[in-house]
Amino acid sequence: MTSQQAKHMDSGAQIMQWSEDLAQHTEVAGMLTRTYLTPAHHAAAAQLAEWMCEAGMQVRRDMAGNVIGRYEAITPNAPALITGSHFDSVRNGGKYDGNLGILLPIACIKQWHAIGKRFPFALEVIGFAEEEGVRFKATLLGSRAAAGTFDMGVLDNLDDAGLSMREVMAASGFHAVGLAKAAYAPESVLAFVEVHIEQGPVLLNEQLPLGIVTAISGASRFMVEIDGLAGHAGTVPMEMRRDAAMAGAEIGLCIERRCHGTAGLVGTVGQFTVPNGAANVVPGKAIFSIDIRAGDDAVRLAAVTDVLAEMNKIGQRRNVVIRARQTHDAVSVPCAPWLQQQLASAIASSEIPVRYLPSGAGHDAMAMAAITDVAMLFVRCGNGGISHHPDEIMTTEDAALASQAFSYFVEHFAK
Amino acid sequence: MTSQQAKHMDSGAQIMQWSEDLAQHTEVAGMLTRTYLTPAHHAAAAQLAEWMCEAGMQVRRDMAGNVIGRYEAITPNAPALITGSHFDSVRNGGKYDGNLGILLPIACIKQWHAIGKRFPFALEVIGFAEEEGVRFKATLLGSRAAAGTFDMGVLDNLDDAGLSMREVMAASGFHAVGLAKAAYAPESVLAFVEVHIEQGPVLLNEQLPLGIVTAISGASRFMVEIDGLAGHAGTVPMEMRRDAAMAGAEIGLCIERRCHGTAGLVGTVGQFTVPNGAANVVPGKAIFSIDIRAGDDAVRLAAVTDVLAEMNKIGQRRNVVIRARQTHDAVSVPCAPWLQQQLASAIASSEIPVRYLPSGAGHDAMAMAAITDVAMLFVRCGNGGISHHPDEIMTTEDAALASQAFSYFVEHFAK
Repeated sequence: MTSQQAKHMDSGAQIMQWSEDLAQHTEVAGMLTRTYLTPAHHAAAAQLAEWMCEAGMQVRRDMAGNVIGRYEAITPNAPALITGSHFDSVRNGGKYDGNLGILLPIACIKQWHAIGKRFPFALEVIGFAEEEGVRFKATLLGSRAAAGTFDMGVLDNLDDAGLSMREVMAASGFHAVGLAKAAYAPESVLAFVEVHIEQGPVLLNEQLPLGIVTAISGASRFMVEIDGLAGHAGTVPMEMRRDAAMAGAEIGLCIERRCHGTAGLVGTVGQFTVPNGAANVVPGKAIFSIDIRAGDDAVRLAAVTDVLAEMNKIGQRRNVVIRARQTHDAVSVPCAPWLQQQLASAIASSEIPVRYLPSGAGHDAMAMAAITDVAMLFVRCGNGGISHHPDEIMTTEDAALASQAFSYFVEHFAK
Repeated sequence: MTSQQAKHMDSGAQIMQWSEDLAQHTEVAGMLTRTYLTPAHHAAAAQLAEWMCEAGMQVRRDMAGNVIGRYEAITPNAPALITGSHFDSVRNGGKYDGNLGILLPIACIKQWHAIGKRFPFALEVIGFAEEEGVRFKATLLGSRAAAGTFDMGVLDNLDDAGLSMREVMAASGFHAVGLAKAAYAPESVLAFVEVHIEQGPVLLNEQLPLGIVTAISGASRFMVEIDGLAGHAGTVPMEMRRDAAMAGAEIGLCIERRCHGTAGLVGTVGQFTVPNGAANVVPGKAIFSIDIRAGDDAVRLAAVTDVLAEMNKIGQRRNVVIRARQTHDAVSVPCAPWLQQQLASAIASSEIPVRYLPSGAGHDAMAMAAITDVAMLFVRCGNGGISHHPDEIMTTEDAALASQAFSYFVEHFAK
């Protein structure tokens, strides 16, 4: 092992230990649930601030509750390369989702700080206060504030206890009026790079520790309601049926078939229900969701067009009425080629094969793309790629390799 | 119109009027809900007894609450041709389901009684107190008592209010100890013939008023649980998925395809659910029901075997775990050819084409088959064949034609 590798193994171990420590800050004992501006969330923010300080950063909080550490450049007030991710969680989530992207750069900076190494640019690490959207049903609150795209309308959203986001923020000392000031001036930013656990099985299955995100997938979502004709399961012959559930089943399989075999394209029926279904009744109604995503918008929209056309044909052939209501439509966010290239050099320097892949999940980088070029470094997710779940795991070795690649990237960063 | 036809038009009108009148006896105003031994059920029984008396019958009730009218033979105590059906209902059911098979023979007997016509055999009309199984989750209570196959175990079944069938019966003056005496002595019975609305669209679609049941279909039912692997809808590529819902969809379509095109065979997925499904999660679990029926047991069992084999293949190919638990298995009950023949002569005498069809739904005749040969006469169901629903309809003309055919059948009946 070289001294470089030993250094990164230390970082890897540090990241894993911090991940465990940070996971102690939870609303519910025995699991990790940390939603926006709860006591557990405040405690996690304080912990991050402490680690950032110890790593030689100046720490501030903005009015969205983001925790921002700045590792000053050789020349004060130089523009910053920004990195970071979120420290809120889904209910009963994993330890690495979000947190890894904050802890890893802190660990790297801690090592540079120890030897007094600084760069021609500042490094800022943001712990985004909110990304998952659990408490107030609005996502990316932290990164949107930092990007200046915060939607003031969501301040009136209520949590399950009936408290508005506005009053919860005020009670924590964060004021809506200051949100506009949370936005970075674009000229102060060089780029945004986010390290994140993959949350899927692609790297795991290819036995690769790291991947470079090409784009954060756009997504189209629909809720579909089918009206057929209910009937007695014993008395209505097959050829006279207008079975809503079987129409839905056919559509589901058609989505699956259409999305199969096109890299980066995925299609999912995640909800499917036959309201008041009974074993001896031919279903008169079925309700289900469709989620179609791709890194390339043209690929996604072509699939959506084909699926909707096929849905119509199925509806006509089966004599059922199909209503598809679009509930979500987001374009894809490409990662900047020049940043992807520099990440590729960093990975290659560790003699790791370079794997490019789209991110099917949304991330803070999506919001940050509004003010600067973005890129993402994915780290292998263990356990079949499970995330948003306590079974989410990653290895110390991968944390070390990610730390090594991220360090190389920063040390060789040039706009 | 001949005087015969005029007579049957009168019967048809009488049956329709009685159906309206009887439907007034309901537990819930504005719909027809009449479950076992409720006040509405008692009132309907009293009404039926009154009409039977007026039609010249001696009326008795057995300890299951069945209402039995006997139209004596030329020679007293002769064996009886038995007919009838049930006067309980499903929740929010139709007016004709069950009731038609009681009211129609009363109307015919009323006419014979008016002219003093009697037969070498007695005619007994049974209003079965319970067939649908709504209140105590056990079906065919009335006909099983009459056939001597009543399962004493169900006396401890509870209704939604927590009352046992045993105590509810006692409170109404019916005692479990008398149930055994409700059974007919087989030598006192010539045959059982049940008139029933089709509850399906076959006769309607072929523009035929009447049909002869060949057999009451046997049924196999399963509850199926599939375990796949939950995953993020954006991050798990199609080829790595183990989607439980799509495995279920494929099985559903395979059942549909297997049952299509074989006369009398039907297969239904009436319940289908993805527990805790979310639009952005690949389903890790799916639960659904399978119901396969056919008039011919060999046809049904061959379909079940094929479906289970196909299910295994789908499970292996998709790498999901499929558990199918059989919840119901009933053999088919054939209708006696000699009775079918005499029904055919009766229908043909009205110059109506003779249509044979299996009954996919269960009926009291299933239970009566334990003590005597059975047959069923189906009457066209309007409104697309809808039954178990307030939209269940039939026409006065069809009631008249059924009355005419039933009268011919009785007048020419010979064992």
